[in-house]
Amino acid sequence: MSIRFILVAPRHPGNIGAAARAMKTMGADDLWLVAPAHFPHAEATALASGADDLLGRARVVATLAEAVADCNFVVGTSARLRTEYYWPGLTPREAAPRLLAAAEEGTAAVVFGTERTGLTNAEFERCNALIHIPANPAYESLNLSQAVQIVAYELRCAAQPDVPRPRRLVPLAPAAELDRLSAHLDQVLTAVGFTDRAGGPHLLKRFERIFGRAELDQHEVNMLRGLLAAVLADRRPPGDGR
Amino acid sequence: MSIRFILVAPRHPGNIGAAARAMKTMGADDLWLVAPAHFPHAEATALASGADDLLGRARVVATLAEAVADCNFVVGTSARLRTEYYWPGLTPREAAPRLLAAAEEGTAAVVFGTERTGLTNAEFERCNALIHIPANPAYESLNLSQAVQIVAYELRCAAQPDVPRPRRLVPLAPAAELDRLSAHLDQVLTAVGFTDRAGGPHLLKRFERIFGRAELDQHEVNMLRGLLAAVLADRRPPGDGR
Repeated sequence: MSIRFILVAPRHPGNIGAAARAMKTMGADDLWLVAPAHFPHAEATALASGADDLLGRARVVATLAEAVADCNFVVGTSARLRTEYYWPGLTPREAAPRLLAAAEEGTAAVVFGTERTGLTNAEFERCNALIHIPANPAYESLNLSQAVQIVAYELRCAAQPDVPRPRRLVPLAPAAELDRLSAHLDQVLTAVGFTDRAGGPHLLKRFERIFGRAELDQHEVNMLRGLLAAVLADRRPPGDGR
Repeated sequence: MSIRFILVAPRHPGNIGAAARAMKTMGADDLWLVAPAHFPHAEATALASGADDLLGRARVVATLAEAVADCNFVVGTSARLRTEYYWPGLTPREAAPRLLAAAEEGTAAVVFGTERTGLTNAEFERCNALIHIPANPAYESLNLSQAVQIVAYELRCAAQPDVPRPRRLVPLAPAAELDRLSAHLDQVLTAVGFTDRAGGPHLLKRFERIFGRAELDQHEVNMLRGLLAAVLADRRPPGDGR
């Protein structure tokens, strides 16, 4: 992901480090710093954890104008809901695909303002659009690195719509296997005389619904059928008069 | 939002505070701590910033079993892609509406494991499903509070699909106004003899596209038409032979 992350006038070096870490977890690695109060700094390196390579490559410039000079699409961020702007307001989710599309043709950037006060109007003037991070109106105090995390996360989701997900070690059982399980269970229910008052398939259906919701894998079906077979084998044979 | 956030064995009090802050920014406020290494702690309070009320109300219990005893739906979190699990794997986006739906009928919880190693298998056994936070496979080192932030953000997005967004102080100009602007411009282009070689509406269309993309508001249309009127007024009247 080649989106540029620009931090304007970060005051606390720890926030720079935490932002670098947040970026790297989501695969972003192009960090620019506009007039940071302290950089490089041991606290930035400490908070970056394993993302100190991003700090080593970070570009430090004096003005936002320099940081966006080669950018074709620039989005400012705000956690506060501002009404007085003339920029299109986007959610992080809406902004992500637009940033990625712009990055295919050039360089796209997301700009984060200084910690307490955010971007100034003059800084917003450099932006094509505004990301408003939805926040609790009663407490909009997103930490700088948390705002970076949310935007980077949305960019990763947009860049990789097919996120990897855990695969089962054992595949889910196909429906035919579940049918065999159900028939086997029906046999047991009848054999042991466990039926509901109305009779009929009602009780069996309820078991089947449980199996369905449980998303049984093949090993589990095998295990359940093993139990059913054991129950049947354990019964006294019919006609055994003991 | 009434989803319970459970931190299992957090080692660093700062992470507890940062997690509380992340929760509160997204409107979550039910924090439970399972066997925290240090709590309460000044560092937790400091990092919570204005979210120290969540720390004051946080429930501290000895085991995860206690923390989820009254929960009807429990989701564990993992930044690492694990393949050896038998739980349904969900993205944070998929998990959010399921958590909210479960919370309407009872208490739903998200569980975050201890900092370095995450949830143990025994802890996963307490979960109905597993959230896998998509992360850079080369660097999956999400800070605890960053993981909390992403899940809380997705919950807020799902709970409030109509997020507030900046409203323009001045409404966008309706299409009829843009047509009048275009006609006015056409008049000026003809008057000043600014036409493309092929003639015809090609050049005007290009201007219109710019206006369209700029999403002009009514004041801006008025301003542009003021300029066009001024250009026309400034011209020598036709037949003025000076």
